[in-house]
This record gives sequence, structure tokens and C-alpha cells, in this order.
Amino acid sequence: MRILILGGDGYLGWPTALHLSAAGHDVAVADNFARRGYDFEMGVDSLVPIEALQTRVAVWRELTGKPVAAYIGDLCDADFTAHMVADFAPDAIVHYAEQRAAPYSMVDRKHAVYTQTNNVVGTLNVLYAIAEINPDIHLVKLGTMGEYGTPNIDIEEGWLQIDHNGRTDRVLYPKRPGSFYHLSKVHDSHNIEFACRIWGIRATDLNQGVVYGQQTDETAADDRLATRYDYDAVFGTVLNRFVVQSVIGVPLTVYGNGGQTRGLIDIRDTVRCIQLACENPADRGEFRVFNQLTQTMSVLQIAETVAAASSEQVPIERLDNPRVEQEEHYYNVVYTGLADLGLEAHLLSDTLIDSLLSITKRYAHRVRPEAMLPTIQWRRTSSVISN
Amino acid sequence: MRILILGGDGYLGWPTALHLSAAGHDVAVADNFARRGYDFEMGVDSLVPIEALQTRVAVWRELTGKPVAAYIGDLCDADFTAHMVADFAPDAIVHYAEQRAAPYSMVDRKHAVYTQTNNVVGTLNVLYAIAEINPDIHLVKLGTMGEYGTPNIDIEEGWLQIDHNGRTDRVLYPKRPGSFYHLSKVHDSHNIEFACRIWGIRATDLNQGVVYGQQTDETAADDRLATRYDYDAVFGTVLNRFVVQSVIGVPLTVYGNGGQTRGLIDIRDTVRCIQLACENPADRGEFRVFNQLTQTMSVLQIAETVAAASSEQVPIERLDNPRVEQEEHYYNVVYTGLADLGLEAHLLSDTLIDSLLSITKRYAHRVRPEAMLPTIQWRRTSSVISN
Repeated sequence: MRILILGGDGYLGWPTALHLSAAGHDVAVADNFARRGYDFEMGVDSLVPIEALQTRVAVWRELTGKPVAAYIGDLCDADFTAHMVADFAPDAIVHYAEQRAAPYSMVDRKHAVYTQTNNVVGTLNVLYAIAEINPDIHLVKLGTMGEYGTPNIDIEEGWLQIDHNGRTDRVLYPKRPGSFYHLSKVHDSHNIEFACRIWGIRATDLNQGVVYGQQTDETAADDRLATRYDYDAVFGTVLNRFVVQSVIGVPLTVYGNGGQTRGLIDIRDTVRCIQLACENPADRGEFRVFNQLTQTMSVLQIAETVAAASSEQVPIERLDNPRVEQEEHYYNVVYTGLADLGLEAHLLSDTLIDSLLSITKRYAHRVRPEAMLPTIQWRRTSSVISN
Repeated sequence: MRILILGGDGYLGWPTALHLSAAGHDVAVADNFARRGYDFEMGVDSLVPIEALQTRVAVWRELTGKPVAAYIGDLCDADFTAHMVADFAPDAIVHYAEQRAAPYSMVDRKHAVYTQTNNVVGTLNVLYAIAEINPDIHLVKLGTMGEYGTPNIDIEEGWLQIDHNGRTDRVLYPKRPGSFYHLSKVHDSHNIEFACRIWGIRATDLNQGVVYGQQTDETAADDRLATRYDYDAVFGTVLNRFVVQSVIGVPLTVYGNGGQTRGLIDIRDTVRCIQLACENPADRGEFRVFNQLTQTMSVLQIAETVAAASSEQVPIERLDNPRVEQEEHYYNVVYTGLADLGLEAHLLSDTLIDSLLSITKRYAHRVRPEAMLPTIQWRRTSSVISN
């Protein structure tokens, strides 16, 4: 298949591109390097050094003989998006190209507006490109489990059968997202479902849990193929951040009482999920939703697991929760769709944490501990009049 | 109370401003005249001539002695929005200032992106202005019944109690909107509910039905206070358009079989609903939703009612439906919230249609019949690569 990866320079986009290329697909990546720009803005950096996209692509070709085309541009530029889709003529488009950090979207008004505009307009442009160029293209869109929030009922895969006053309907699962970022993904899902309905396009929306890990078989083949490893309070995912804290010997910082339960997934399973979704496309007109996680754990359990795997004695410290969220809640998620397509999950194990610990130790000299303390508050805005 | 009407130059914003002013409130209006600009773009015009906003305000002051302050600017300009809110210091903000036509949002990619960006960013800027300047301000936001679509279950007022697998929760009512415009309002509702949750602001979301009528007690006092009367296929609401068709003696055009059922409301009830919502604010942190309609009718029933009230013999013509929507469906809507606050509904009557017929006859020489034929198709986009 011909598969175009939007956001193909990012933490997951790049490993996904290599995994699909290794699996024999014709792959292209697109990126505007917004993610690298956020590092400059926030004064942080990937713990593991990453190469320029052009270098990455050249190394992959050198090692495997497989070309990966690179389109440099912004999805919010409709010309760029349409011409890329017409030029590469993909069978599937995997869409990671969104601002993906909840804290970043909560910095202030500008960051909230940027996040929603960037994500929603980029996705609208992709939907129009598909509808106008080839409605048969399968859109595989990355969503997040954070769109659901923490309802007091079971979380189904995107749709919910409702019985109400003696009548029934199947509706989009009602969501209660926890940041302007998570909201942007909810907006996307509504827009995509509508595009499926009116234009008959095919889409898979993947509500992904918190991803951990830094290596896949393909990125591990050469240091120059490494993907990002974010550990800061804005872009770092929680397990990765705990591992870094344990290595540099600072307390693992849990927000509030740590009872917040989250879905988790190993980075090696993420790339496999994308492959399964692409190779088993949704039907024409179908808005298909999978919950992309392999287990659930509370944040405190994650911290305890990392602490137990560490050779040092690592304390766990509770910080005032900067977010507005439930710290004790029901959480029962259905995630059978990808397993039915053949996903065999890597569950969180000491082996994985050992491998993350060893990567972290190698680059421990690059850690900036202050970057791990949360500074962005959900409850208050940053200024009286923000511009 | 001090009440700021965003979109105060529009079809409903202007009559609302006068109604609240007449009721003794201190009123200001804000507008960027986008609605007047759409007329130029589409080559259409209000059937009833309307004065410049500055003239309207001066006439109202001349007749009543009551001042209405006017802020000229764009809500997407965050500086303008924040400075206006700080300057006027309202107790309530009534927010009509959105692109409000489903067909306009479906013209092409640009119009879809414009509609969603304009509506969502404008509302985000209003939310931030409230949170940063005075979180006690009550936001009264205009939504639409079209956000719900036509579910096979009863439509509740914004929230739904769900029983699922033996557990229960109260969730935002799951919506299935029918255009990129309707989607923009769904996005708004999610953003506003989140702002209530994290900042403790108070908001009322009014999901309004199709409005008919052209006069309120206040606008009828002087020709120069008249509000818009749109009859074209893009901005005209269905009953108003049927009345114009009946007066100029062309068939009333029903899309598809006309079984689409819609909520309706008289313009005099709209302004009263806004007054009731403002004078009975939501609680701090509450996202309150009312369905703002007073009766439901199918499009065919509306056509038959107009045809019966007309002195001439008026045929009803079925057109291929340019929209993607169900033409036969269950439709049972709860709308008790505003009645509980004291709304006494004007139901659609021959008297109302008589009054609309007489206004229409007065301005019949201004009708452009071709403007009533639908040209915007939901199913196809307008070009191979739209820019």
C-alpha cells in the first residue's frame, strides 16, 4: 500500500513510518517541524538526540534500500495539503500532525486558540483533500483516550448504543475532554464522522492511551534513526518522565493523589496498531473507532512500578494537581477492536523499564530537572488580558 | 443589568438589543458587519431595507431616550474582545456573533474553515475575556437545534442521563450535526462546558429552532429600526422564504419529501427567551442548556400552512434535497426550561403569517426569485483542488 504519514517527524510518526516501510509499504512522511519548534519555545529538548528528517530518511535508505519521501509543509496550508495528496496518491493517510500536549494548550489564550485552529483546520484540509482528490483514501486519525474523560459508565469504542425512554439509537460516545487540546480532538472526531456521512469517505479514529517506550525494532537499528524521548512536564508522557526522574535520583512527581487511571500502550504496539488499521481499512462511509491501549493503570501504580524496577531507592512525591480532573474515578474501557485485527500486546514489564532505564542512563547528562516541574495551571489564566 | 449583545447588528441581535433596552437594561452591541458582507459576496440583500447600525442606535435614542453603545470589531481579534468586555463591564454577554448559515458553511473548503475558525475562535476569545476580566459574567450563547440532528430517541435539554451496563452518568447529549456550521456550534458547546468546569464561569447554551417573523414591538416602532428579512436559499429561514415565494407567486420549494421535522420559534419569543435567560442566570460553574423552540412541524406542514394562509393558490414543489439529512424521522424534543422561566409562547398562527405577508407585499419589488433556488450541494465539493 501507499501510506502517507502526517506528522512523520514526530515521536510516533517517525517510528510508524519506518515500521510501515519495513513491512513493505510505500511510505511518505509530511511535517512542518512544529514539534521541534515547541522545544525552542519551551527551552526543552528530546533526551535522546534526534537527527534532521532528511538525515533520518537518508540513513533508512542506506540501511534498507527503502525510500521514504518527505513533504515539508503545513496542513493548514490547503495548497500544500491538496498537492501532496494528489502527488503521492496514497491508499491511506495516517494523521499524527497535531499539537498533542494538553499542558501546551492550557498555557494561555493564544496557545488554546493555536491548538484548536491548527488541529481542526489541518484536519479539515485533509478531509477536503480526500473528498476532492480520491474519496477512497482511508484516513487513520490519531485521537486520544483523554477525549472521553472519566465517565461513570464503561467507555465503549467511539459509539454507544443508548436506550432512552423506550427507544434506542447508536450515537457517538458522549465525551468530556479535559483540556483545550483534548477538545480539539473531539472537534476533529465530529468533523470526520460528518465527512464519512456526507462524502462516503472511510476513516478510523484511534483513541490512544499514554504511550511509553522509546524504541521499536526499526529505530533501534541505528542511533541516527532514534525517535524523540520527551520527559518535560509539557510534552513528556508520564511513564517516560518517571523513568527519567528515577535515573537522576529525584522524586517521581504524582499530581494529586495519583488515583487518576489511564490507558497505556507500548510504542511498539502503537506502530503495530497503525499497520493493522491501514491493512484492514474501514468501509466506505464508515467512521470506525478503536481504543488504542493495552492495559490501564493508575498514575500512582505507574510510579510504583517504575520505582520498583529502579535499582535506587526512589521516593514518590505528591504535587498539587495543576489540572482539573477527577483523582478517584470509575474507569473501564473496551479495547477489543485492534485485538480482533490481530494485535498482540506488549504489557508493561520490567524488561521494558530496564531498556528505558538504560537509554536514560546513557543520556542522563542531558536531563534538565527543572523541566519536569509543572508550571501550567488549568484553573487560572496567565494574565488579565492575554494577547 | 448591563448586557452586551455580540452580533447586535444581525437579524436577531438587533431586536434583542432593543427588547432588553426597552425592558430597562443597559445595553451595548458589538458587530463586525460580517453578515452585511455575506450579502455582497452572495449578491443578495435583506428584503426589508435596514439602516446602518449607527443610524439604528441614534433613532432608538431619539424615540426612547435610551442609549445603546456600539463596539465595532471582530471577536477573533482578542484585543478588541478583551478591551470591550473590560470597558463595558457587562453582567451578561449574549453571543449571536457567529456565521449562522449551514449552506454558507458548505460552499467549499474555504467557507467550512472560515465558519469553524470564526465561530470557535471568537467564542474562545469571549471565554478567556470572561475568565480573565470577570468570571461572574453570565454567557448566554446561541446554539441551534440542528446540532442534535435527528436522533431516534427523545432530544433532552443538552444533558442526558445514561444507564449503561448497570451504571449511570449524566453526559452532554450526544449530537449528530448536519453541516460544518452546525458542527462549529457543537465545538463551541464542548469548549464552553469545559470553561464552566475549570474556571467556574456561568453559561447558558440556547439551542434555537428555526426563527420566523420579522417584527418585534420595538422594531415595529419605526421603519428605521427594522431588522433583516432574509429569504434567499443561503441565509433565509424556511418559513420566511415560503412566505416570499407565496407572495411573488412561485412554488414553495420543499427539499426532498419535506418530512424533515424542525423546531420553530417566533422572533418575538426569541427576544423574550434571551431576556429570561439573562434575568435568571446560570449558577457559577453551571453549563445550562435550554432548547429554544415553541413547537415542531415538518417542512411540508410549514409549506402547507403558508399556502393555506395565502390569498393566492400556491403550489408546493419538491426539489432534490441538496443536503444530506433524514427526510422521515422520529422527532420529540423537550423544551420546558424556558417555559419554566416564564416564556409564554406565540404559536404559529394565521395572524403572524398575515403580518409577514403584508411586510412582504410592501417590499415585493425587491425580491430576486433566483436567490431562493438552492445551489450549494452537501454531497459534492466544488472543485478538484479548492483554494
